[in-house]
Amino acid sequence: MLLIRLCILLLVPTLCRGSRILVVPVDGSHWVNMEVMLRELHSRGHNITVLRSAKSWYIPSNSSIYTSINVHMLEDESNRDSFITLINDVMECRRSLTFTRTFCQQHLLTSLMWNAHHIIARSISLMLDDPVFIKKLQDARFDLMLTDPALNMGVFLGSYLKLPMVFNVRWINTGEGHFTIAPSPVSYVPVTTSELADQMGFMERTKNMLHYLHSVVEQHFLVSPAYSDLLQRHFPPGTDVLSLQRAADIWLVRTDFVFEFPRPTMPNVFYIGGFQCKKAKPLPAELEAFMESSGDHGVVVMSLGTLISALPPEVTEAIAAAFAQIPQKVVWKFLGERPASLGNNTLLVNWLPQNDLLGHPKTRAFVAHGGTNGVYEAIYHGVPVLGLPLLFDQFDNLLRLKMRGAARVVEAKSLTKEEFLEALKDILETPSYRKNMQHLSHLHHDQPVSPMDTAIFWIEYVIRNKGAAHLRSAGFNLPWYSYFNLDVAVFIMGLVGAFFWILVLVCRILCCGGFRRKIKAE
Amino acid sequence: MLLIRLCILLLVPTLCRGSRILVVPVDGSHWVNMEVMLRELHSRGHNITVLRSAKSWYIPSNSSIYTSINVHMLEDESNRDSFITLINDVMECRRSLTFTRTFCQQHLLTSLMWNAHHIIARSISLMLDDPVFIKKLQDARFDLMLTDPALNMGVFLGSYLKLPMVFNVRWINTGEGHFTIAPSPVSYVPVTTSELADQMGFMERTKNMLHYLHSVVEQHFLVSPAYSDLLQRHFPPGTDVLSLQRAADIWLVRTDFVFEFPRPTMPNVFYIGGFQCKKAKPLPAELEAFMESSGDHGVVVMSLGTLISALPPEVTEAIAAAFAQIPQKVVWKFLGERPASLGNNTLLVNWLPQNDLLGHPKTRAFVAHGGTNGVYEAIYHGVPVLGLPLLFDQFDNLLRLKMRGAARVVEAKSLTKEEFLEALKDILETPSYRKNMQHLSHLHHDQPVSPMDTAIFWIEYVIRNKGAAHLRSAGFNLPWYSYFNLDVAVFIMGLVGAFFWILVLVCRILCCGGFRRKIKAE
Repeated sequence: MLLIRLCILLLVPTLCRGSRILVVPVDGSHWVNMEVMLRELHSRGHNITVLRSAKSWYIPSNSSIYTSINVHMLEDESNRDSFITLINDVMECRRSLTFTRTFCQQHLLTSLMWNAHHIIARSISLMLDDPVFIKKLQDARFDLMLTDPALNMGVFLGSYLKLPMVFNVRWINTGEGHFTIAPSPVSYVPVTTSELADQMGFMERTKNMLHYLHSVVEQHFLVSPAYSDLLQRHFPPGTDVLSLQRAADIWLVRTDFVFEFPRPTMPNVFYIGGFQCKKAKPLPAELEAFMESSGDHGVVVMSLGTLISALPPEVTEAIAAAFAQIPQKVVWKFLGERPASLGNNTLLVNWLPQNDLLGHPKTRAFVAHGGTNGVYEAIYHGVPVLGLPLLFDQFDNLLRLKMRGAARVVEAKSLTKEEFLEALKDILETPSYRKNMQHLSHLHHDQPVSPMDTAIFWIEYVIRNKGAAHLRSAGFNLPWYSYFNLDVAVFIMGLVGAFFWILVLVCRILCCGGFRRKIKAE
Repeated sequence: MLLIRLCILLLVPTLCRGSRILVVPVDGSHWVNMEVMLRELHSRGHNITVLRSAKSWYIPSNSSIYTSINVHMLEDESNRDSFITLINDVMECRRSLTFTRTFCQQHLLTSLMWNAHHIIARSISLMLDDPVFIKKLQDARFDLMLTDPALNMGVFLGSYLKLPMVFNVRWINTGEGHFTIAPSPVSYVPVTTSELADQMGFMERTKNMLHYLHSVVEQHFLVSPAYSDLLQRHFPPGTDVLSLQRAADIWLVRTDFVFEFPRPTMPNVFYIGGFQCKKAKPLPAELEAFMESSGDHGVVVMSLGTLISALPPEVTEAIAAAFAQIPQKVVWKFLGERPASLGNNTLLVNWLPQNDLLGHPKTRAFVAHGGTNGVYEAIYHGVPVLGLPLLFDQFDNLLRLKMRGAARVVEAKSLTKEEFLEALKDILETPSYRKNMQHLSHLHHDQPVSPMDTAIFWIEYVIRNKGAAHLRSAGFNLPWYSYFNLDVAVFIMGLVGAFFWILVLVCRILCCGGFRRKIKAE
């Protein structure tokens, strides 16, 4: 049996080695893990072409693992600093009451997305309207489109080029749920950014329903119109954004059910959460010496990933002051002015080998914003998290760890030294956080195939089988009222109604007839 | 990466070797594949105890791979011949029109199940009311209950003993769908025995909805009452059959999406269709000589599995006469009186090495009743099927192969020689059947882990982690109206209604006020 598996692993992939893969990534933290996947694909002999913006934030134009082509992208009309503004606005929102807070945040995200969708639609138009560019891509005879559908560029381009498609996906901005991935009952599947768990009371389910209805309205009135002209000009009638997303052959979802709440899924969805994690490598000598100098107290690692300089100065000061009061040493990924209250135990660095640090035996806790990459590295290495969520799904991510007793979460909006210190001491001194996180870590490692092998297997599967249409649900071809069987329900209720109406009519005639006869008889 | 996988496979299982597994199988064809799984578990060092009936049809009391305990079971109060009667009744049903046929068949199955559930409930009562027996099981300190929930004995016993549970399941008689496995939208998930595909028109969706409503009514008025006394006496208040089934840690479903229509699934459901198949071994010399004697024409294999003697004599004669007219040789698994019309090319045997025969290069077609075991062996070896469905899910199984162009299906009810011969020739002479089946076979083999390895991995996973509660959906704790969010929908519609009512009221007051003022002014 083992031999058979070994043969599958060794022999089958050779059948599709040297395939040509077109990649449309999303910049920022999304690129961090896409690059890990591309590195693995390159090592297996595939030829990779990456579409990037000339003004890309993170995606280098020269790489030993791929060829790049510059195209107009979101990054051309926005910049990383806009995230800082957004984070400040989100913090402002979070100062208000729960109910208005939700609306305020949702409004911010909606405006951001409205803008983004229009830029993306313009970018796609620029590509599809350029016959030379399209000819170049067609002539390259790609075997696969690998894309992150958080933004829609790859989805449109892949469909236009009629390429088999694999999504490397954390979340999508349009139509997540029923009509793209799998049934998502609103009663126990919390909508992304709702900050709800899977066990909800009546009012929480109502909140989740409102989030869901909001996403439907947003999809219909905000997302779809942004692409309508583009769709009309370049795609067959009846095509919409959702139908293009549904055309994916395989969804590789960057999550794992030791972390995500159990939810319905589909045969063409595979879970690769933590695929980017690996065993810790030795640290650079200087950093290793710093770690060792912490003695039995150990080290706290802090990183906000690609949102490194997102915190307002007063929060940075509070954090620095709190760090100064713990016996542990601290390694802090930091950009900007050195906080005045910084203690001697804290080392500021503008880059850190996060995976290796989290896997170091001296590491006791991870202060993080709750981005997916960091969360999975923490799970992989079993390090409890003190969460400082800032944007998007980070609030949801940290809620999941908190629900499992593996994290504390503090609000960045008005963080004081005392609050942060209390939470930090709690994480460091209460053994259950570490124990729970190590349990998650143990379960996360207990898989028949590693997440990276799963990802590569299904990418190569789609290449060698030219798609995976047989795994795609027939439910996606139905209009929404048929999908929910409303037409049938109305029909059956109509029949039942008609039956009872006739029954009553007959009874009446019989009774009245009888009654009349009775009266006559009397 | 490969090395890591190899280590996982080699090392992790050793952690739970020598575990004690309690098995409650279902007799007949269900036992055929359960035994294959037990053989594999035994080879990995687990200690297996099987509960069986003293009058068991197929499960031997003495085995080198397990210890058996005799208990009262369904087999004590029914016999294999009752299947023959049932098949005849089903054939009678299938002579009527489509609409009445469905009702007729459903009525037969319902009566059968009503009887079965009462016997099973009695059997479980006998076990749970016997303190010596229960003490014996408790003292054995089992690590796992492995059961086939087609009948409920293992489900009840596993829950009562509070054992982690793994289901080896093809279908269940109670509550399949929304409330036990995964959301099963009636618009594209055909109900078992509905003989519908995933792509349905309006009337087909209506038919499927009626099947679904029938199953709900059956569950409520037929299944639940059979167990109510038992549940009241031995389980906490509020327990019902569905909640016991939902307690399964892992569902190992004997299907594969090269065969099954894509449908929603859950993180604790794994698909092991074809796990019992293996490469063909050499045939006994005599049989091999017969195969070789067929020359280029090849051989047709016919088997109705455990329903070997189910066909009425006139149908048997028609089949024999048709076989006599083809140039191929035929191996027919047969019990009973030798058909008068049997040709020289046909070899009757009362047992055949089905897997080895289907894997033989001379085999051209498989005439089968469409039981799951045979269907997967045909897929595994890429042999096209001529289906002769008789009972239960066999009609559904063969429909799936037919939809993929890999099978023809004939009705046994009134089969004539001409009909059978035409279908047989079609299967043998039209290359697309073989081509399509070999495509399915190719996809079926293209999996990262073999179905058997998947099964064993998750069984041992549940043993070493003492369950898999984190993979269980929170949706299952909700009452049905909350699961479907009907309470929230009513609440939101109420709010919206109230809003508009107030709006109209305010408008009226303002308008009327204005109107009155206007009148006054005039």
